[in-house]
Amino acid sequence: MNEPTLHPESGFIRFRMDFSYDGSFFAGWAKQLDQRTIQEESEAALKAITRFPVRTQVAGRTDAGVHASAQVAHFDLPELDTQLKPWDEHDLAYKMNRMLSEDIRVHSIIRAPKYFHARFSALSREYFYKIADANQVILPLQRYDTVSWYRPIDIDLIKSAIKPLLGHHDFAAFCKKGSKGTSIRTLEQFKIYREANNFISIHVIADAFCYSMVRNLVGAAVCVGEGRYEPEWMKALLDKKERVGESLVFPGTGLTLIRVNYPEDSMLQERMEYTLRRRDQIE
Amino acid sequence: MNEPTLHPESGFIRFRMDFSYDGSFFAGWAKQLDQRTIQEESEAALKAITRFPVRTQVAGRTDAGVHASAQVAHFDLPELDTQLKPWDEHDLAYKMNRMLSEDIRVHSIIRAPKYFHARFSALSREYFYKIADANQVILPLQRYDTVSWYRPIDIDLIKSAIKPLLGHHDFAAFCKKGSKGTSIRTLEQFKIYREANNFISIHVIADAFCYSMVRNLVGAAVCVGEGRYEPEWMKALLDKKERVGESLVFPGTGLTLIRVNYPEDSMLQERMEYTLRRRDQIE
Repeated sequence: MNEPTLHPESGFIRFRMDFSYDGSFFAGWAKQLDQRTIQEESEAALKAITRFPVRTQVAGRTDAGVHASAQVAHFDLPELDTQLKPWDEHDLAYKMNRMLSEDIRVHSIIRAPKYFHARFSALSREYFYKIADANQVILPLQRYDTVSWYRPIDIDLIKSAIKPLLGHHDFAAFCKKGSKGTSIRTLEQFKIYREANNFISIHVIADAFCYSMVRNLVGAAVCVGEGRYEPEWMKALLDKKERVGESLVFPGTGLTLIRVNYPEDSMLQERMEYTLRRRDQIE
Repeated sequence: MNEPTLHPESGFIRFRMDFSYDGSFFAGWAKQLDQRTIQEESEAALKAITRFPVRTQVAGRTDAGVHASAQVAHFDLPELDTQLKPWDEHDLAYKMNRMLSEDIRVHSIIRAPKYFHARFSALSREYFYKIADANQVILPLQRYDTVSWYRPIDIDLIKSAIKPLLGHHDFAAFCKKGSKGTSIRTLEQFKIYREANNFISIHVIADAFCYSMVRNLVGAAVCVGEGRYEPEWMKALLDKKERVGESLVFPGTGLTLIRVNYPEDSMLQERMEYTLRRRDQIE
């Protein structure tokens, strides 16, 4: 299997694929032996259509059960297809949707601008987390992306607990051990509010997230919101830089990748180089 | 099995159950041999909890694949439970949700007012139908209640086609043959519009619907909306009173029962009697 390269190899062109998935029945994005994964199914479909052993690079490597309404990946193909014709982007996307099961949908496949790298050119990732607290009944069609919580949650307590975590910090306390690289990230937003149906939504933005970071932040925030700990406890956790308990990781079901932000085309190269200088940080 | 009675038998009290379901993995509401149905699972759970062979009466007998976000049923129980205590309504609902699978959720079980009959006291039923036309990509988490249509649909054509169907008519052309009783109904509303995501929503209200009526109206409306027939065609179908082709019945997946309307408690008896006088009409 060809390893992905930073830039397309000579004679190859890069494509950007925008797609979405219901993570319920996947063991996450990344390929794993004998598991159903989004990467495996996407690459198998691309290979069947293009007859090339396509390798994808994705913006946000989502975990088991996590959804994406706007995921981004790139892959490289030889300039001409097997009939020596240029690739028809619209046709590629159409064939992908014919081949993939309904829980993955391709929104578009386009020729990527120069220096586009789905992972390293990204400025930030946005995630959404949905909770039905106080044992509220979850409508059956909402059960796929909403997590149930027994106790009532005071979102004002969470707001004050999160405030000191915003900005540039070492989030080691909220990152699963075993990941290479540092756990320094910039938490740009952690917005929590009640929807019209009284469920809680959390909209989180960071330059990048380390493994299980959103679900760990949500888990710790809920401890504060239900009154188990004082709001100051979260900042104390952050400062200690010791991993908090696995029990605080909230389920993947409630989590959806909703956006990946990229700079203007003219800034793609600069962003990629910036990311690569601190590459060990970006997991 | 005890047959449901119009009023609770002596020594019995009536309960109203409000609930919802994802119809995707059910063969519809009504019990059928060797099929997974909502009625079967609800009654089995009620029986396990109450130790009585509970029979339910439902407001809208939804078909295979059809969802409900606000279904209503009633059932009768002896005044006291096996420990000779009055029933705890909150406890009944709680236990139901513990026992049922996640694709059925009970919102509440309460003592019904006098003369309440989930089916015969109802004033009207409201349904929602969702279509993604022009081959728009359906987000994976929307696939459970949205139907895909290849061609673009002009909703203004549908609006003018539907106008003459509003009101009191014999809807035989849009009702599946084999149903007993008449097919005279009052179509109170057929509102069609585009959502922010560009999908089409249809919100239909009638006193009652005969079998497959909403899905048949939607199917015929789409024929007009895509320009296959003139808007006048729908009124001509109505007037002919001959069943239109089965091919015009749109899939259950797109359909959700969203509300059942009842009169004030003081009017329940009158409404039930009115319905019963024309009972053969209410299928």
